[in-house]
Amino acid sequence: MEQRALTSELGSRIGERVRLAGWAWRLRRIGAIAFIVLRDRGGTVQVVFEGRRPEYAAIPSLCAEDVVSVSGTVRADPRAPGGVEVSGESLEVISRASPLPFEVNLPEVKSGLDLVLDNRVVALRHPRAQAVFRARAALIGGFRRFSEAAGMLEIQTPKIVATGTEGGASLFAVDYLGRRAYLAQSPQFYKQMLVIAGFERVFEVGPVYRAEPHNTSRHLNEFTSLDWEVGFVRRAAEVMDLEERMLREVAAELDRRCTGELSVLQARPAALLPRSEIPRLTLSEVHSLLETRFGKVSPPGDLDPEGERLTCETTGGAAFVTDWPVASRPAYAAPWEDRPELTDSFDLLLGGMEVTTGGRRISDYDQLVESFRLRGLDPDDFGFYLDAFRYGTPPHAGLAIGAERLTMALLGLANMREAAYFPRDRDRLTP
Amino acid sequence: MEQRALTSELGSRIGERVRLAGWAWRLRRIGAIAFIVLRDRGGTVQVVFEGRRPEYAAIPSLCAEDVVSVSGTVRADPRAPGGVEVSGESLEVISRASPLPFEVNLPEVKSGLDLVLDNRVVALRHPRAQAVFRARAALIGGFRRFSEAAGMLEIQTPKIVATGTEGGASLFAVDYLGRRAYLAQSPQFYKQMLVIAGFERVFEVGPVYRAEPHNTSRHLNEFTSLDWEVGFVRRAAEVMDLEERMLREVAAELDRRCTGELSVLQARPAALLPRSEIPRLTLSEVHSLLETRFGKVSPPGDLDPEGERLTCETTGGAAFVTDWPVASRPAYAAPWEDRPELTDSFDLLLGGMEVTTGGRRISDYDQLVESFRLRGLDPDDFGFYLDAFRYGTPPHAGLAIGAERLTMALLGLANMREAAYFPRDRDRLTP
Repeated sequence: MEQRALTSELGSRIGERVRLAGWAWRLRRIGAIAFIVLRDRGGTVQVVFEGRRPEYAAIPSLCAEDVVSVSGTVRADPRAPGGVEVSGESLEVISRASPLPFEVNLPEVKSGLDLVLDNRVVALRHPRAQAVFRARAALIGGFRRFSEAAGMLEIQTPKIVATGTEGGASLFAVDYLGRRAYLAQSPQFYKQMLVIAGFERVFEVGPVYRAEPHNTSRHLNEFTSLDWEVGFVRRAAEVMDLEERMLREVAAELDRRCTGELSVLQARPAALLPRSEIPRLTLSEVHSLLETRFGKVSPPGDLDPEGERLTCETTGGAAFVTDWPVASRPAYAAPWEDRPELTDSFDLLLGGMEVTTGGRRISDYDQLVESFRLRGLDPDDFGFYLDAFRYGTPPHAGLAIGAERLTMALLGLANMREAAYFPRDRDRLTP
Repeated sequence: MEQRALTSELGSRIGERVRLAGWAWRLRRIGAIAFIVLRDRGGTVQVVFEGRRPEYAAIPSLCAEDVVSVSGTVRADPRAPGGVEVSGESLEVISRASPLPFEVNLPEVKSGLDLVLDNRVVALRHPRAQAVFRARAALIGGFRRFSEAAGMLEIQTPKIVATGTEGGASLFAVDYLGRRAYLAQSPQFYKQMLVIAGFERVFEVGPVYRAEPHNTSRHLNEFTSLDWEVGFVRRAAEVMDLEERMLREVAAELDRRCTGELSVLQARPAALLPRSEIPRLTLSEVHSLLETRFGKVSPPGDLDPEGERLTCETTGGAAFVTDWPVASRPAYAAPWEDRPELTDSFDLLLGGMEVTTGGRRISDYDQLVESFRLRGLDPDDFGFYLDAFRYGTPPHAGLAIGAERLTMALLGLANMREAAYFPRDRDRLTP
């Protein structure tokens, strides 16, 4: 069979005969002329069938989303999007579609989120959804390229673990061949252990799990975490520097490589970042700012969603919030030497919400054991992790970025579920 | 503080003063001269301290694996590995190491696998382990680059699922907020659904789970799967073609980019692949071959580990085994149109074992429902997957490669656990 061409290649094949294959996106007839907009992974093109010929026999019965193979000749047409259309010569139906659960071939899908998520395979065919996930992949690819260029090794750590990083809260339990195990809330312990194991600088793109019953527009129970852990650094600020450079490079790369996707989404990721350096404010400075400017009192040692949004509004879209109290951070967070009630840690707020948590870690064995004890955690439950600190540990720091949250922020999506292929939340375990 | 240099940069910095940081790998004293071999992520270098100076005060108490920072001047030394050594000027101890659970600074670690795995963070510091995981990352990176160049989109699919791909066997159960869920055995259903959702060609690098009580050198309960699913292909052979090209490119890239690692491991991945095309034999041809050549009778519809090994011995190291019986494959495997008892599917044997399973999938809804029924599975349990086939489905095929098995095969490792950072097996849930 003739090699298949993609709709995105047709601009350079004017006058040639091609075979296309894809979904019947839009169908229209005017008298004896049939117009079929064919959609493939490259985009869409209009195919025009004039007159009645045996090769067109399948056209009258064609339905939206049938999979078809079309042969025809590429013609320049300045009125068409992309500047080409195809003069159809034959059409073969590869697979028939049943009536759709909702209309997908509209400029914007108008159905409710539940119907869209229940019928994810149909909903994802919309150019807007295609654009979200192509941009998401570019974003993750950009994170990976930056990390490798910064000397980090890509790792894959176990997601079945014996204990959580913060005790038993928010953990999904797994029956592990008769033993009780859990799904990893984060690769925190393992990425630190691999820094200590001599890899020094590591990154991971992998799933993480939170057994939280929240059902908000920005929580999921399973999501993709972009993690760094970097040895031989002495301040969290070095990781903030690295993250800021990474975000600017990734946003610029998206602007450059995903022009079609960003235009569909009307998003401008690079424009979301402040022109000058992302401001770095301590949590206590942020609390004062919110109180002075908005009369808002924040929860002690924390920022609520409204506080995150208002902070971004006053800082040009993004802010690093530093110096979180020991009580607000996990046992592995390193306190400042001269202010032991505060940690050398940060959150990054972007597009009105927290997208990153990071900081310097405790690297001294005795101090770490004591930090677990202070939180009422039994060091024996964390022995496999604590042991790693006994055999020569470089100072280190790192961060975790929620990939869906970062995608949501950079693309301006309303709900984090739009950035997950098959979201898992309190109510949703399928598809 | 002076910027840190890596040991791997020193060849171009002869005569300069540098600051190094890393682990004290080997220690030796001859009279008033102390030799410290310092190890960092770039490799090792010998630092020589002559005489007695206050800046050397920490040296007498130094132990193997202490983390140190060293300043000194780089000197050319043709006798040294790498052609340089460092004339030490000062040394600071950053972190002390307790006595080690086993000697790691030997040319080869002689301790048993259990001790090595119990103390993974120490064991991974050995240059051989460092080489394995740097090669593993290069291999996964090569797979990813090839997949992207072939037009595939990188996806991340949920690992918490409502049902297995083959019913209830070998599934880890998860308590999902009070509902029963499972860990995904493979991204099979979801990668197919994303092909059907219009992404057409997708790949994934992610964890998969098998609740099997095996405890062999080539089974793990959690491993990394490299997955492809490709739409608009009509024969599994197209995926075999693609895999063969990928393997040759990845092996050549390893030979080129990981010269140091491969030399430590004495591995030559490219030499493992047959010079001419990888032979493609049907399962029944392989059975005959094993019986004729070795008098070996294979289990019906299957190959045992010895059969896999012997097959590789007779085919120059690798073989695609095709045409598996319907009864040996899952419900989604597509039977041949003219031989409905056999499927258009394949395994790839490499280095004596199966590293890939792949094939064409059933893309017709009614045929797929029937295939589940024939296996005694209730189609209603798979509704979220089957539904995807109702709205226009291109023909498609794909494969899954075990990353640890491929690493093991290409690097010639004796045990799959050597290719996993923190292996999960019947007995091992920590570290």
